[in-house]
Amino acid sequence: MDHAATTKICDAAKQTIIKHLDDFANPSSSHELGRQARVLIEDARERIAKCINANPEHIYFTSGGSEANTLALNKRHHTASSKFEHHSIVTDWPKISITKDGFIKSHKLNNMLSEWWEVPFTVMSCMHVNNEIGTIQPVQELATIAHRYGILFHTDAVQSMPYIPIDVQDIGCDMLSASGHKFGAPKGVGFLYSNERSRIKPIINGGHQENGKRPGTENVLGIVAMAAALEDTVEHMEERNTYVKSLRDNLLEKLLKIDGAYLNGSLENRVPGNINIRFSGVSGTRLVTLCSLHGIYISAGSACNEGISEPSHVLKVIGLTDEEALSSVRITLSHYNTERDVEIVADVITALVKRIRDGN
Amino acid sequence: MDHAATTKICDAAKQTIIKHLDDFANPSSSHELGRQARVLIEDARERIAKCINANPEHIYFTSGGSEANTLALNKRHHTASSKFEHHSIVTDWPKISITKDGFIKSHKLNNMLSEWWEVPFTVMSCMHVNNEIGTIQPVQELATIAHRYGILFHTDAVQSMPYIPIDVQDIGCDMLSASGHKFGAPKGVGFLYSNERSRIKPIINGGHQENGKRPGTENVLGIVAMAAALEDTVEHMEERNTYVKSLRDNLLEKLLKIDGAYLNGSLENRVPGNINIRFSGVSGTRLVTLCSLHGIYISAGSACNEGISEPSHVLKVIGLTDEEALSSVRITLSHYNTERDVEIVADVITALVKRIRDGN
Repeated sequence: MDHAATTKICDAAKQTIIKHLDDFANPSSSHELGRQARVLIEDARERIAKCINANPEHIYFTSGGSEANTLALNKRHHTASSKFEHHSIVTDWPKISITKDGFIKSHKLNNMLSEWWEVPFTVMSCMHVNNEIGTIQPVQELATIAHRYGILFHTDAVQSMPYIPIDVQDIGCDMLSASGHKFGAPKGVGFLYSNERSRIKPIINGGHQENGKRPGTENVLGIVAMAAALEDTVEHMEERNTYVKSLRDNLLEKLLKIDGAYLNGSLENRVPGNINIRFSGVSGTRLVTLCSLHGIYISAGSACNEGISEPSHVLKVIGLTDEEALSSVRITLSHYNTERDVEIVADVITALVKRIRDGN
Repeated sequence: MDHAATTKICDAAKQTIIKHLDDFANPSSSHELGRQARVLIEDARERIAKCINANPEHIYFTSGGSEANTLALNKRHHTASSKFEHHSIVTDWPKISITKDGFIKSHKLNNMLSEWWEVPFTVMSCMHVNNEIGTIQPVQELATIAHRYGILFHTDAVQSMPYIPIDVQDIGCDMLSASGHKFGAPKGVGFLYSNERSRIKPIINGGHQENGKRPGTENVLGIVAMAAALEDTVEHMEERNTYVKSLRDNLLEKLLKIDGAYLNGSLENRVPGNINIRFSGVSGTRLVTLCSLHGIYISAGSACNEGISEPSHVLKVIGLTDEEALSSVRITLSHYNTERDVEIVADVITALVKRIRDGN
């Protein structure tokens, strides 16, 4: 129940990996074996582009979401973002604030921009779905506002890709980041969508790979597996979302029956698998540890921040006190979970919260 | 016969990948599944460190050699290198020249440094083995000179790792780059060795992974496969080198019987699998294309520079004319090749060179 941290490699991706284990040529080699490896990558690029309604030429393969986010904002003059972005989004302008429900205040962006004679930054980056509370951000509206002022719009879609049909034309974004392992691909591969206007600048030096924007020999196996995983994700999205939402709603209902339990962030406009809940007086990290001893895997924050004992910056910007933030846990379900899992998790967490409060 | 471009995933790495396809947890997660993934990575780090006589804490996993090289030199005040480095080595000081045999002139570095009152740069980067002509560079000597002047020494060991036992203490380098797919691991994974003095600065923004020096969820499968591949490489290095050298010498002898055939670079102090040879009046790219039609895969330069019609910068700095450089091909053997392969390749290339010269 920690599927926002990462996902199992799906069967389609696994079969792809096993099938291509021996297709080892370097896609940059000009002989026939190299050409075959190049075809594998370009085929994967087309399939991925199709899944998000993009031009294949606008897909740049990376080692994952953090690299894609860094690449998107690399060497920009000035960049802005919201107050609850992933740590890989590093910007230099004041950040747009967040509502108590967990949404980026788009009117604040509009107000801020309308106050200046000259636009003070060149790129606005806002995540599509928050990685801790799962709230879906008004990226279409934010993109429209950004474009009104001649600003590029980037969205980190790492957490939305498994749950929301992505159409880059419809969102109107200039750049979009994705991470394979969040939707059934192996770790170590992701991509950045970047249109002509974006003019990204490489962070890695070297050869001409990825049109010179991302040098380094391509992760062929990871890329073909990611294409298979994204197609599988898109194909089954609707049915899985319905199923996962019913599991999530069922679990949430049971957990909210615990005394002093509160959902963090809006239940509306939230991806179907996400619960972020606090139990007053209960240490989130302690609950995670005890759950783990019972074979239940949840998290006290995003995986990227695990081990850091400070309260989540996401929960703080939506108005939680340090104490409230530290008593929160994230439970993220997927289609691999079952009704039986939900029963067990609800029972175990109910018992553990009581036990922690009783001081045992 | 293009094993300097990339290698087959070795059996040990393949079995490792298949074994761990379902170990999907995020190593940053604090629950038991996350801990297990963390153990896999730390075990791989220790095994890799042992293979190169390093402290495991000095191994930083990357997406490959280009990223490792970029990371090594990132945000340094001033850096220097030789005239025939890989394109991922970007430095800002005059480059040390190369002998006609293909070796970095270490006395030139010494002379240059002794002329200055103040040392003009902070890091010297020299490749261990040249990627086109396979010559083994005097890295130990270069490291000693660099250290005499208080300069850090980095070596790109991407091409040496499959053939030369690496001991970072013995070389005396502060940093060393490696790429998994050059020694039997899949593409998309590599590492940088970096000791305490090096103080590398991250190129990717994000979480605390790799001690904050390389954020982004780790490529778990790639990393464990790379450890298996490196152990396999080290274990069989001696026997494979003997075998590959005998194949290479046999092939070279046959190819040098062709009229107007010349070996580029020294045969002494050269890795056992490498032949870089020119046939006067014959276009290298044309020979590569025709060989490919006969199922023989060789290259006209390094894979990273394929598709670029300019003469190789490596061949030019060892004194070849443009015409000589453009009439050169690289043939790189491995232990997967056989005596029979050598016979066929010699016969086909002999016939093709004749055919090209005859204008057919």
